[in-house]
Amino acid sequence: MSEKGGGLYAGARTETKARLKALRAALASEKADAILITDLKNARYLTGFTGSNAFVIITESRAFLLTDSRYTTQASEEVRGFHIKTVTKALDAVAALVASMKIRSLGFEAANVTCSMHSRLSEAMPKVRLKPFTGLAGIRIRKDASEIKGIRASASLLDTGYRDAARLIRPGAIERDVALSIEMALRRRGADGLAFDTIIASGPRGALPHGKASEKVIKKGEFVVVDMGVLMDGYNSDETRTFVVGRATTRQSEIYGIVRDAQARALEAVRPGVKAGEVDAAAREHIRKSGYGKYFGHGTGHGVGLDIHEGPSIAPGNDEILVEGMVITVEPGIYIPGWGGVRIEDMVLVKKGGYELLTKTGKDLRAL
Amino acid sequence: MSEKGGGLYAGARTETKARLKALRAALASEKADAILITDLKNARYLTGFTGSNAFVIITESRAFLLTDSRYTTQASEEVRGFHIKTVTKALDAVAALVASMKIRSLGFEAANVTCSMHSRLSEAMPKVRLKPFTGLAGIRIRKDASEIKGIRASASLLDTGYRDAARLIRPGAIERDVALSIEMALRRRGADGLAFDTIIASGPRGALPHGKASEKVIKKGEFVVVDMGVLMDGYNSDETRTFVVGRATTRQSEIYGIVRDAQARALEAVRPGVKAGEVDAAAREHIRKSGYGKYFGHGTGHGVGLDIHEGPSIAPGNDEILVEGMVITVEPGIYIPGWGGVRIEDMVLVKKGGYELLTKTGKDLRAL
Repeated sequence: MSEKGGGLYAGARTETKARLKALRAALASEKADAILITDLKNARYLTGFTGSNAFVIITESRAFLLTDSRYTTQASEEVRGFHIKTVTKALDAVAALVASMKIRSLGFEAANVTCSMHSRLSEAMPKVRLKPFTGLAGIRIRKDASEIKGIRASASLLDTGYRDAARLIRPGAIERDVALSIEMALRRRGADGLAFDTIIASGPRGALPHGKASEKVIKKGEFVVVDMGVLMDGYNSDETRTFVVGRATTRQSEIYGIVRDAQARALEAVRPGVKAGEVDAAAREHIRKSGYGKYFGHGTGHGVGLDIHEGPSIAPGNDEILVEGMVITVEPGIYIPGWGGVRIEDMVLVKKGGYELLTKTGKDLRAL
Repeated sequence: MSEKGGGLYAGARTETKARLKALRAALASEKADAILITDLKNARYLTGFTGSNAFVIITESRAFLLTDSRYTTQASEEVRGFHIKTVTKALDAVAALVASMKIRSLGFEAANVTCSMHSRLSEAMPKVRLKPFTGLAGIRIRKDASEIKGIRASASLLDTGYRDAARLIRPGAIERDVALSIEMALRRRGADGLAFDTIIASGPRGALPHGKASEKVIKKGEFVVVDMGVLMDGYNSDETRTFVVGRATTRQSEIYGIVRDAQARALEAVRPGVKAGEVDAAAREHIRKSGYGKYFGHGTGHGVGLDIHEGPSIAPGNDEILVEGMVITVEPGIYIPGWGGVRIEDMVLVKKGGYELLTKTGKDLRAL
């Protein structure tokens, strides 16, 4: 882990500088003297550190990474531009540092800090004003070059899992066995893990948008929805394909075609300057006009990066504007209770004038 | 998942009643009108519900489980004795329920609720006093019969992983490949996942108490520390064995023997009425007298259950008294930087007059 992380982040050091600069701009607008970062993904984003114990303190002119003795060597290899301190009692060390710099107001991540931890922070520095801070989600929503490289690699690895899926899905196979075999192959090829429990939902189970692979036996004639993601070097990927086992019926071909067209329309809508809700509407409108509107109950997509679900939400009525550098999923579906479902999902990078497809498995209906 | 969970919890319903009774006793002593449970493991413990979305509200006379529409069927199958409500906006639903019952003070889990969530709760019910509540850890520390059954099954499955380890570890094998193969076999045999990333630390890496399986090639003559855990039907297990590849040297045999004796002494100390710190001292004292005191830097053990790390902590100076029904690990080790390490860990149930071993892999030094 340490070596791989170091390798990735070696090329990202100019970018961690830019990230720190963006955070400092937020610091000024939040009117805090310093910000305490406790979310491990945010700490990684700012410093490049991939360990599991990190407290980051940023002031206008200084930057500290606090970690424990397990990670001293790793932190010194991965991180540049931060004072690295090895500490035993992290919150006491934070308080001591805050006191030594005469910090009076400290931003903290309200979505990450529990009430218990907040109490301990307050007790350790009774004179410091703790201010809820939300600034990093807004910075992370736009991916920089080294992040895009990481996401591209994760998506590209994920594509290989769909080759396995096409080989393993057959009448008589058990959903869970297929999922395990694919996971194992992905991990042997370099995935650090899955982004989420693999969804393999065959036949009527396809009507569940979150049908985790089960003990169900896959049968001839069924649709099989396969929704997977991998985590590699910190970055998530997310993709869905729907296969048919044997020959598709007329109704299966029709419904697959509607979802495929809906996804194509949503993709066509993706470009900088467009509202997230417009991308959703492009898919939703097509499914509605085709007569299946009530069978598409979820949003059309979401941002992906260090977290598998990030902003922006590609959902009805979301006025957030897409900008270059966002990475989003586009994943409409039709789910008919008792019959089954179809979902097709790609991950795309928002680029000048349009988008770039990051997941590249074919989308013609494939009969296995 | 749903069927398996239902099966396990069918036999646990009389026990969920006793758990609810224990929580209500805590409710009275905390002087709150009701308690809101947001930690999913605590919600599962109280209700038997295994879904990933749950808010539980308990008053002196009533008990509610709130979940979303994905889980309506599952909740009705798994849960008895709770009013089950399907909700969309959970916090608003919590506030409405609290208002309808005229609740004035509501206990919440301070170690689980983030500052953001606390703000939203306060806004949704401005007249209700929110009181930090810590009562469930104290209740969960003592396992009841159905929990012990679950933990026993998890530990027994884990033992099979050590048979795989003994077969797979050989000169030339890569730590990470061995870990993946064992994981896959455990999952095919029914594990829902690992309790933590498998530690396979060979040669000098054995000196890292948390040496996650790496790309390192295992060599002849090395010690290999294998620390694994599985998660099955909600319950964790945890075990460590150290193997030697080829013939052990005199020094290896000596150090292994010291750790083995230290572990035996700590196990002998385990019985109701003893302080947790005394169990730690039994192992620590033996290692110190043998001249390796400075090479044993961590605590001797911890509780295990729905969480992989729970109370009690088997650490120096902990005055907490062991009682029947606690499940703890006993895991002393010696770690010599640059040379390697040995750790031997079992999970035991504290019983009248002593303990019962839950992990049963042999402890004679095994040469592979």
